[in-house]
Amino acid sequence: MRGDEQQTHARAAALTTALAGIVGGSHVSDDPTVLARYGTDWTGRWRGRAALAVLPLDAEQTAAVLAACARAGVGVVTQGGNTGLVGAAVPPDGSVVLSTARMTTLDTSRLGDGVLTAGAGVTLAEVQRTAAAAGWSFGVDLAARDSATIGGMVATNAGGVHVVRHGMMRAQLIGVEMALTTGEVVRELRGLDKDNTGPSLTQLACGSEGTLGVVTRAQLRLHRPTGATTVLLVPVDDAGTAAELATRARRGLTGVVALEYVDEGARALVRRHLQLDDPLGEGLGGALLVECEDELEAAVAALGLEPRHANAVRVATDDAARRRLWALRERVPEAVNRQGVPRKLDVALPVAELGGFELWLHARIAHLGAGTGASTTAPTLAVIGHVGDGNLHVNVVGPPGVDEAALDLLEDDTYREAVRRGGSISAEHGVGRAKAHLLALVRTPQELAVLARIGHAMDPTGTLRPRASR
Amino acid sequence: MRGDEQQTHARAAALTTALAGIVGGSHVSDDPTVLARYGTDWTGRWRGRAALAVLPLDAEQTAAVLAACARAGVGVVTQGGNTGLVGAAVPPDGSVVLSTARMTTLDTSRLGDGVLTAGAGVTLAEVQRTAAAAGWSFGVDLAARDSATIGGMVATNAGGVHVVRHGMMRAQLIGVEMALTTGEVVRELRGLDKDNTGPSLTQLACGSEGTLGVVTRAQLRLHRPTGATTVLLVPVDDAGTAAELATRARRGLTGVVALEYVDEGARALVRRHLQLDDPLGEGLGGALLVECEDELEAAVAALGLEPRHANAVRVATDDAARRRLWALRERVPEAVNRQGVPRKLDVALPVAELGGFELWLHARIAHLGAGTGASTTAPTLAVIGHVGDGNLHVNVVGPPGVDEAALDLLEDDTYREAVRRGGSISAEHGVGRAKAHLLALVRTPQELAVLARIGHAMDPTGTLRPRASR
Repeated sequence: MRGDEQQTHARAAALTTALAGIVGGSHVSDDPTVLARYGTDWTGRWRGRAALAVLPLDAEQTAAVLAACARAGVGVVTQGGNTGLVGAAVPPDGSVVLSTARMTTLDTSRLGDGVLTAGAGVTLAEVQRTAAAAGWSFGVDLAARDSATIGGMVATNAGGVHVVRHGMMRAQLIGVEMALTTGEVVRELRGLDKDNTGPSLTQLACGSEGTLGVVTRAQLRLHRPTGATTVLLVPVDDAGTAAELATRARRGLTGVVALEYVDEGARALVRRHLQLDDPLGEGLGGALLVECEDELEAAVAALGLEPRHANAVRVATDDAARRRLWALRERVPEAVNRQGVPRKLDVALPVAELGGFELWLHARIAHLGAGTGASTTAPTLAVIGHVGDGNLHVNVVGPPGVDEAALDLLEDDTYREAVRRGGSISAEHGVGRAKAHLLALVRTPQELAVLARIGHAMDPTGTLRPRASR
Repeated sequence: MRGDEQQTHARAAALTTALAGIVGGSHVSDDPTVLARYGTDWTGRWRGRAALAVLPLDAEQTAAVLAACARAGVGVVTQGGNTGLVGAAVPPDGSVVLSTARMTTLDTSRLGDGVLTAGAGVTLAEVQRTAAAAGWSFGVDLAARDSATIGGMVATNAGGVHVVRHGMMRAQLIGVEMALTTGEVVRELRGLDKDNTGPSLTQLACGSEGTLGVVTRAQLRLHRPTGATTVLLVPVDDAGTAAELATRARRGLTGVVALEYVDEGARALVRRHLQLDDPLGEGLGGALLVECEDELEAAVAALGLEPRHANAVRVATDDAARRRLWALRERVPEAVNRQGVPRKLDVALPVAELGGFELWLHARIAHLGAGTGASTTAPTLAVIGHVGDGNLHVNVVGPPGVDEAALDLLEDDTYREAVRRGGSISAEHGVGRAKAHLLALVRTPQELAVLARIGHAMDPTGTLRPRASR
């Protein structure tokens, strides 16, 4: 062993001992088998070999762990349910991965008032069940509900299908507890809907992707449960038309629940791979799914449907029928996976730009197919999205033998085009590793400088921002 | 003139010249008549003699003004509509008061999508009118709507009567433009409902009370207009009962618009001073006002009213009748002012503590009346509030000759009691000058240290936090 290797090992051993002293020996591990569990995200795209995994029990242990790592000069990456799509929770080589898995307390003492306090490691599904059992509803829902944790959802300001109704994760928060690398704990947990006592550290934590501190608990405002709903599946030409109808729905419906878009490509994949009976038949074009508490007549009036559309609209007012219509939207990710390993792009756009952006995307994909590379077959495109929020998820599946570098370029070009049209490189997935190199498209040097100073104020050692390759 | 006075004057003249170079000579003033307009808040309680008033036109001018003041070592206080209740917008002696009055641009290019971009100096009333004219509604309403400005409402995270429906000002924001004392401008103005690209400077600005930067524009998400509503005025014993009913309303009503409490004392003042025909008659007790889009039968069922209450409930379903019932709540401030100059306290409490807190308050006031000071008449107490949010506004009017120091003590004791019961020293009014000495009741030393570091990151010279006496 060379001298510097010996030193590295000695430092790692010292840190392990220090962390074991904080969380107990059984909650620190350098076992490669254990570490492997934390070393890849579920897309399989991002990888890293952490030196240690540590599982603190609460905010105090978390703060002590962070301070020990900061003193040792070792970077820390926080991991919740590991359901992120941008690699933010995957530890870089040699870093410490801090798992929130043991922080699973659920304080229901204020449930009567519609306030629930959850440890960072509690899953979304458990919060939803707890709220429902007490006659309330939680405002955010997403497909990864059985794995995604509250801490991660706060750190990433999670979105999903009900943003148009209740807002994003940030809108559900009435407080957060957060541990810092300075060893400090901030605790905005009075459980009050209104509490104007200076800048909100809760709101600063939300969307910070683990770069400022580690969220250890969150206090959630619950909502009344949704009543009986009407689901309409409306044929639309493109995302632009869908977005226009969605705006009418936002302005005219009293109880919007969801406004979701499925493009022609996504419909085709669902039909091809899942043998799903497409409620809109075999025709071309996309679909807008509208779910609302309004009666059918009111919904049709609010949407101002043209006769040619109104006749083709499919309607559901009972559970089985609602599920059939929703399947066309909900099963798209499954159908996409059958086609191949997808790239999942997440963009936000102003409503007026959605149609033009979609046209650009088709042209860009066709151009890729016309290339002279290893493959001349165009990648498969399937666009879905929370169109009521101006949010599209673009799925791109390359044909076998596709030039991955060409797809990398396609990704970057797509984000550039979204920004050129006044949109953003991330609606709800975040920046993470995947888009760090694109951040300057949406943040000025001045904003990046201000954000860096805030980062330094919260985490002076930069412990929570370890470098990782893209 | 002594040497140091000469130096002070020379510095003031140099700063005046510098500011005139930025905003134009006609938009800087050291005229005492002009300065007097900015030197007192509308309660008349807070006063200060600014050295200069400056009116920048946009973010760039604001940033340049702030940087010039920072270089000169002169503190700056931002003033919008000057409708605050805690003295935060009143300049300390010798400081510069920065008025947002000229920043009145209104960008309606995205109004079709329900997005409105307003300069900091635009009034709430103008935003409401603009939204309504385009078939939308703005989510915040408060009595000072003709004076209160959007910039001030962002900086204070304004509340009001519709928080239970649409959330506070923070929930209406999809972006903010802010000028810093470093000369930097941050501009989160893409107008997107979703834009997860790092920590939100917009949300950090909201509620910062002008201590981090100057908000120069805000981008607002509009909502569908409220439909026809039912108003119920329900007799209640106390704030605790009102709060319980309010929680039922939050859980059971599909379209809650407002949940407001008026206590027995407030009702009595309205009857005495305004000769208002009390809809609940001359009886004792308080009232809960429920406004919702639900039908009457659904509302009564959701509230689970006991028979003795249900019979006494007053109901309105047309405009004139709605206004009559609302008058009992809306005219309380006017009635209170007829009684004398009030102290207006603003507290937030957990629902379960509202009843006990109110009892404590009555006992504490009675104790003051039983004192051996200049007056042995107890102050008059009138409690109203946004009880659906756990927010009470406590009005205290001392009898002629009351010992003001005793009322100061009463104020502090009231806030201490709120905190002892798990509540906060400010629901929606903020901290400002009035409650700076109480901040340690709700913020730990660690939190204050973190907030100070964030303050330093945004405003390294402390220019936006000039010292003022309480």
